[in-house]
Amino acid sequence: MILEIINKKRLGKELSYKELDYFFNGYLNGEIADYQMASLLMAICINGMTDEEIFSLTKIFIDSGDILDFSDIEGIKVDKHSTGGIGDKTTLVIAPIVASLGIPVIKMSGRGLGYTGGTIDKLESIPGFRIDLKEKEIFEQVKDIGVVVTGQTKDLAPMDKVIYALRDVTGTVSSIPLIASSIMSKKIASDADKILIDIKVGNGALLKTKEEAKKLSELMIKIGEVYGREVRTIISDMNTPLGKCIGNALEVLEAVDVLKGKEDSTNLFNLCVELATEMVSMGKDVSKEDARKLVLESIDTGKALKKFEEMVKYQNGDLTAIKVSDKTIKIKANKTGEIKKINALELGKLSLALGAGKIKKSDKIDYSVGIKLNKLVGSYVKAGDLLMTLYVNKDAIDVNIDDIFTIE
Amino acid sequence: MILEIINKKRLGKELSYKELDYFFNGYLNGEIADYQMASLLMAICINGMTDEEIFSLTKIFIDSGDILDFSDIEGIKVDKHSTGGIGDKTTLVIAPIVASLGIPVIKMSGRGLGYTGGTIDKLESIPGFRIDLKEKEIFEQVKDIGVVVTGQTKDLAPMDKVIYALRDVTGTVSSIPLIASSIMSKKIASDADKILIDIKVGNGALLKTKEEAKKLSELMIKIGEVYGREVRTIISDMNTPLGKCIGNALEVLEAVDVLKGKEDSTNLFNLCVELATEMVSMGKDVSKEDARKLVLESIDTGKALKKFEEMVKYQNGDLTAIKVSDKTIKIKANKTGEIKKINALELGKLSLALGAGKIKKSDKIDYSVGIKLNKLVGSYVKAGDLLMTLYVNKDAIDVNIDDIFTIE
Repeated sequence: MILEIINKKRLGKELSYKELDYFFNGYLNGEIADYQMASLLMAICINGMTDEEIFSLTKIFIDSGDILDFSDIEGIKVDKHSTGGIGDKTTLVIAPIVASLGIPVIKMSGRGLGYTGGTIDKLESIPGFRIDLKEKEIFEQVKDIGVVVTGQTKDLAPMDKVIYALRDVTGTVSSIPLIASSIMSKKIASDADKILIDIKVGNGALLKTKEEAKKLSELMIKIGEVYGREVRTIISDMNTPLGKCIGNALEVLEAVDVLKGKEDSTNLFNLCVELATEMVSMGKDVSKEDARKLVLESIDTGKALKKFEEMVKYQNGDLTAIKVSDKTIKIKANKTGEIKKINALELGKLSLALGAGKIKKSDKIDYSVGIKLNKLVGSYVKAGDLLMTLYVNKDAIDVNIDDIFTIE
Repeated sequence: MILEIINKKRLGKELSYKELDYFFNGYLNGEIADYQMASLLMAICINGMTDEEIFSLTKIFIDSGDILDFSDIEGIKVDKHSTGGIGDKTTLVIAPIVASLGIPVIKMSGRGLGYTGGTIDKLESIPGFRIDLKEKEIFEQVKDIGVVVTGQTKDLAPMDKVIYALRDVTGTVSSIPLIASSIMSKKIASDADKILIDIKVGNGALLKTKEEAKKLSELMIKIGEVYGREVRTIISDMNTPLGKCIGNALEVLEAVDVLKGKEDSTNLFNLCVELATEMVSMGKDVSKEDARKLVLESIDTGKALKKFEEMVKYQNGDLTAIKVSDKTIKIKANKTGEIKKINALELGKLSLALGAGKIKKSDKIDYSVGIKLNKLVGSYVKAGDLLMTLYVNKDAIDVNIDDIFTIE
């Protein structure tokens, strides 16, 4: 039976719900070995899955754990997910904006993966901040202040967790059907009414082309339909990092600056407004024009910032205690010209090398290190101008400027 | 590096010798996990390999172990390999025929796999028969009597062994590049001068279509060219079992009957003559017509049988002590008509169920059980006529006649 299922997918045939259920639950129960699951995952990566198979797999993931119930919370709960990028701290900005407008936000976020940081790691750079809330605590907090950003509860789609861990080490991450079922199962199990997905495309993202992004978008909307959840998607660029900062504490401070209205000319600000506008439009059932006005107003009046501070306090965090390393390395331009590109992937690699993320599972994250861009794409620089500042806890670091900045 | 290699093959790109060497030797050394190798193997199965990749992999397999040296033995050593079938005892017949004509035969055979039996298992049904000869013993025996059939020496292409074991449990057996490198690496490492490959096609074989068989044939000839070894191939049918008997002791006795000239109207006899003719033509560098005459003469004069008995004795076996179970179950026709088909795969499954092969690795083979067909394809039978006799050590066995015999 095990080999028959693998062989079927090897030959590109469709697997039934029963076959997928047998195989994936067999893996979870230890009856099917990891090398057998790895083999099936690779066959799925290359030969793809039909819509029916994807619906089956999503259901299997959902049913593997708890299905949360936040139906007692008033209002339309809008969730947001990003497929992951370099410098992506949008959740920290938009969750309070949306909540400040009366839409309940329950956001369960993940940790960094590969070169991309995770919202939960970023929040952990705030001393004291709790990211391990239980379902009951989440419920209480949303009732009280309307917003919570926490880690996934333990029993949410546990099968997705073990499958993801295996995909990560077997070269089977880049599969649109697997990405779709992984994301959607968690969003549905965590009881979101409406879901916004930010699909990143570019060298710093999982997906490299717009075509893949469109496929993923269509698929997630279809899965949403099966479960009666409205799904909207935004396809956004990830060739260039988002904003100026990469690194956990630095990114939290940058998010605060955005909420203060200080950073209103970056790609980060624009994307935050775009995402928040979609969420408000979904949550309040209003036009995008109206939603956008509300979003900008929430920033301008300081309501969003206040909501963020309220959330941090509620989750036991102390924003004033955030620490950024005071040891810095300044990287200067080696030529004169306009910055045409800033390579997201290379900056992701550099931030990992600084210790802002994990290379091995056993690594410890250094929350205080990171990168701050002093110049963005479009700037004209002279040789010797400061391009970026590295906040480090090391004495030396290899940086190849030309890999990161394209100056012409 | 590990993931880069897997991803490359996932995308269908060519891997260099260096990359394949790193990955496969990394696996052998325990640096690369079995789930990672399984993932790569599945990517190879689906996306294939270029000729260069196949040559690289063959070299890596060969270099993983000892390379035998039988150059001191006079004459052209011709080896033969079958990709495996139901009832295939041709080696037992042709090795002595060819040797009786003065061509040295060193045949290292394998065990049963899946539904197909193995020559070594068959020989083990001869009480006392040694199948674990060392290189030195092989050398001595071939010098003395010109023929040896034994198991693979331990250090022959050890990487192929571990890869094969993993392929067997991950649904990655059916890959023409992997089959080609696996077989050819062993034949080249065991120092055959010329090689004959019997490629089986049909429901009872690894390969299901003639197109696959042709591809495998071309590939093995090309690998042979790289190593300066003449390779010939025969593509033979495996929808119908070979001969009348399936099961270890039964098959040895049937091989003796063929050598006695008693079974000269079966597909087994025809294939044995065809294979032996090719080997003699290669080993003596004569036309097929001349070779065929020599082969038939060797059987007719009893020289081949004598050579077989000599070999069994030399390897410590006692043919007179072979035991076939005396408990039988007789299977009779349930309708009248001509036997249009006898399903090899179903008979393979039945022989496994009887205990003639292993289902799990820990199973023990029962050499005395098996199946004897009392009627062959083309026979006209009446309802109630004896179709086959099962030699068993069980009280009951499920048999669905219609799955095995097509009578119309």
